[in-house]
Amino acid sequence: MNRRYFLRQSSMALAAGSVLHPDWNALGFQKTNTVRLGFIGVGLRGRNHMEQALYRPDVQVTAIADIDPAALAESNQMIQKSGRKAAAVYSGEKDFEKLVQRTDVDAVIIATPWNWHAPMAIAAMKAGKYVGLEVPAMVTLKEAWDLVETHEKTGTHLMLLENVCYRRDVIAILNMIRQGLFGEMIYAHCGYQHDLRPVKFNDGKQPYGGGVEFGDKGLSEARWRTQHSVDRNGDIYPTHGIGPVAEWMNINYGNRFVRLNSMATQSRGLHKYIVEKGGETHPNAKVNFKLGDIVTTSIQCQNGENIVIIHDTNSPRPYSLGFRAQGTEGIWMNDGNQIYLEKVSARHDQWEAFADYQAKYDHPLWKKFEKDAENAGHGGMDFFVLRAFIESVKRKLPPPIDVYDAVTWSAISPLSEESISKGGAMVEFPDFTKGKWSNRKPTFGMNEDY
Amino acid sequence: MNRRYFLRQSSMALAAGSVLHPDWNALGFQKTNTVRLGFIGVGLRGRNHMEQALYRPDVQVTAIADIDPAALAESNQMIQKSGRKAAAVYSGEKDFEKLVQRTDVDAVIIATPWNWHAPMAIAAMKAGKYVGLEVPAMVTLKEAWDLVETHEKTGTHLMLLENVCYRRDVIAILNMIRQGLFGEMIYAHCGYQHDLRPVKFNDGKQPYGGGVEFGDKGLSEARWRTQHSVDRNGDIYPTHGIGPVAEWMNINYGNRFVRLNSMATQSRGLHKYIVEKGGETHPNAKVNFKLGDIVTTSIQCQNGENIVIIHDTNSPRPYSLGFRAQGTEGIWMNDGNQIYLEKVSARHDQWEAFADYQAKYDHPLWKKFEKDAENAGHGGMDFFVLRAFIESVKRKLPPPIDVYDAVTWSAISPLSEESISKGGAMVEFPDFTKGKWSNRKPTFGMNEDY
Repeated sequence: MNRRYFLRQSSMALAAGSVLHPDWNALGFQKTNTVRLGFIGVGLRGRNHMEQALYRPDVQVTAIADIDPAALAESNQMIQKSGRKAAAVYSGEKDFEKLVQRTDVDAVIIATPWNWHAPMAIAAMKAGKYVGLEVPAMVTLKEAWDLVETHEKTGTHLMLLENVCYRRDVIAILNMIRQGLFGEMIYAHCGYQHDLRPVKFNDGKQPYGGGVEFGDKGLSEARWRTQHSVDRNGDIYPTHGIGPVAEWMNINYGNRFVRLNSMATQSRGLHKYIVEKGGETHPNAKVNFKLGDIVTTSIQCQNGENIVIIHDTNSPRPYSLGFRAQGTEGIWMNDGNQIYLEKVSARHDQWEAFADYQAKYDHPLWKKFEKDAENAGHGGMDFFVLRAFIESVKRKLPPPIDVYDAVTWSAISPLSEESISKGGAMVEFPDFTKGKWSNRKPTFGMNEDY
Repeated sequence: MNRRYFLRQSSMALAAGSVLHPDWNALGFQKTNTVRLGFIGVGLRGRNHMEQALYRPDVQVTAIADIDPAALAESNQMIQKSGRKAAAVYSGEKDFEKLVQRTDVDAVIIATPWNWHAPMAIAAMKAGKYVGLEVPAMVTLKEAWDLVETHEKTGTHLMLLENVCYRRDVIAILNMIRQGLFGEMIYAHCGYQHDLRPVKFNDGKQPYGGGVEFGDKGLSEARWRTQHSVDRNGDIYPTHGIGPVAEWMNINYGNRFVRLNSMATQSRGLHKYIVEKGGETHPNAKVNFKLGDIVTTSIQCQNGENIVIIHDTNSPRPYSLGFRAQGTEGIWMNDGNQIYLEKVSARHDQWEAFADYQAKYDHPLWKKFEKDAENAGHGGMDFFVLRAFIESVKRKLPPPIDVYDAVTWSAISPLSEESISKGGAMVEFPDFTKGKWSNRKPTFGMNEDY
């Protein structure tokens, strides 16, 4: 979960010459079918994806775009160290429009500040490039509809690169739900509960902590991400939590989000952090952060299920996505990693450790690619999400997490902002599928190949 | 948590002659100041309280009322075994009105079906009897106001017998919050998550399980409690969760509940239980239960804090009240019993087991009365709640959980029903204190004596 640590590890791996994964041949790829990737955004997160891509012999990186020349240089060093030739570079703010026009780019991966996600993805789809888009898909409802309309007009696909969908426990739970072990699903919890204070603030020299700067004086995510906490009050980062839950609940595949409401606490954590680390006289101590410290969103689903999502990024707390899956026959909780299944558990009304279930119901993808995933970031999730994207591109198939899923999950942000601005009023959820949700069949996690 | 087990234990203790607690003299009571109690409702719960009362040398039980002659007989056996003379008995449905008129009754304990709580408490207050009332205080908002008005007109006190406020962990957390260890409070979770299916249904011969009968054919709580699941959709049992949280958040003491909304899942668990245990042809398989399996309520507080309450009683699941206390400097979670305090915890962003904190910040009440509490029901909570009631009566003081707290906590039920009936709309919370909340000072848990 620590990108700095991860990048250091990956740089070491590349420096040591382990360019291709040792078990690569066992994976059965068609080496002749090469995907030529363009990267829009090669900051820390873009390079995470690039590293995964460079492990694969069936990927070339032909073009990269970023406004930071150092990031471009670092990326081309990674590319060349992997034995590939340097990619074409674009450094202008609007140069992504040129990158997507290149005939030697089959697909693009977009890992840029959130406000750029939709415009870049739309430009790429219009140019016929298969899009891999970092989370969230967009910031506003208008952008959500624009993404959908662009996909429908162009026929070009977009995959949301929501890595947590592939987290080993949540995809094992999906496996168990599909096997009926929880009965009928009725309830879930999830969230993004992560102390981001040292991400939102730094000293302008290192990406994490060491100071209370953000915006022009900050580095990395603090340059742009923190402003969202100044301007917005809502669940501004919902997809890590809702992605896996949406898969459990078949959202957009026979089920849908019908309405939601949100509530926010007072805003204290970011101001307190600035005062404690930078002093009361620091200019940022005057900044008014609109984002409540904790935002709770409740969603009603078409088939009756309820989902609670918590956004909690301004307070000291151990990391937890706080998952809870509950059906008519059992419950699993992330916190405590405990499970109870009425028809399976040995003792009545007693939690069991999840470990044995994890082993028994490990998803086929994990069983097959465990060793490959171990080298990847974020506990292996990044391996699987990149793999699913590349395999979808190669097979010219719709991705397992498509544009409808992308905007449905991400739309929680503007809808929760709307609810909070209306005093917690219930807000209707748009049906981005325009009725297709009732007949769509899921592909996510439905096979052991991608 | 198992009343049947508890009663068996207590009967054994009484039979063995251990009428008064061995450490009684160490408690420093004024034996001459005797409280004469009347009990309205001596079913299983009423007799739990009676057993606690009979341990005390400063309590007499002078009158008991119940519509069940067997419960009356059993109660008088308990009373006589304790060396006291039998109480006067009342068995008519309206006989509580006679009981409260007795001049040899100083205070009454009411442990009856929920619909009777308010009318009985009001009758007792009008007769000048100090009231100890089981949870919830009432069912409707009108009853809530009637309780408040009756208290204000008569000057007679009412204490809600919410035992969980005295649970050892949550009152230690209160102690820690008051010492500032969590910083400013911003968030809490709580709930009533308890598989009540074998409480809501039985075979009419035993109080828990063994069949799928309720109403006239059921026994004990199934006779009346289950009907609430037929008729109502809301958080119909909020006080075990919200009581401790209200203490943490100073609700009615400088803070108040401002508004709430609620959402309910589909209703599946009770029907499924009937079909699985009684067959599809059982008459109760035709009953339509209005209560959603899980009801989630979000409350906004005056000072900005948010509280999430979960009512989850129709599904297979291990018991948990799901507490979470979170402030600007730390978080404690009931599930996993884990804590992180930014300025105290040894390792950054890592949970610690709560055990050491429990020992260090054990509430003075528990430190003082640990041994006495050990013999009581529900993990010692019943000892403390009964003790606080008796001591309040003896000292002629307002109770630590008063009529305003009682109706505020209990009003979550009708308000959540209203929100759900309006599609999850935000509902304003009445201010039962009529503005007094801003200046009231808490007495709950403020000393080590009661």
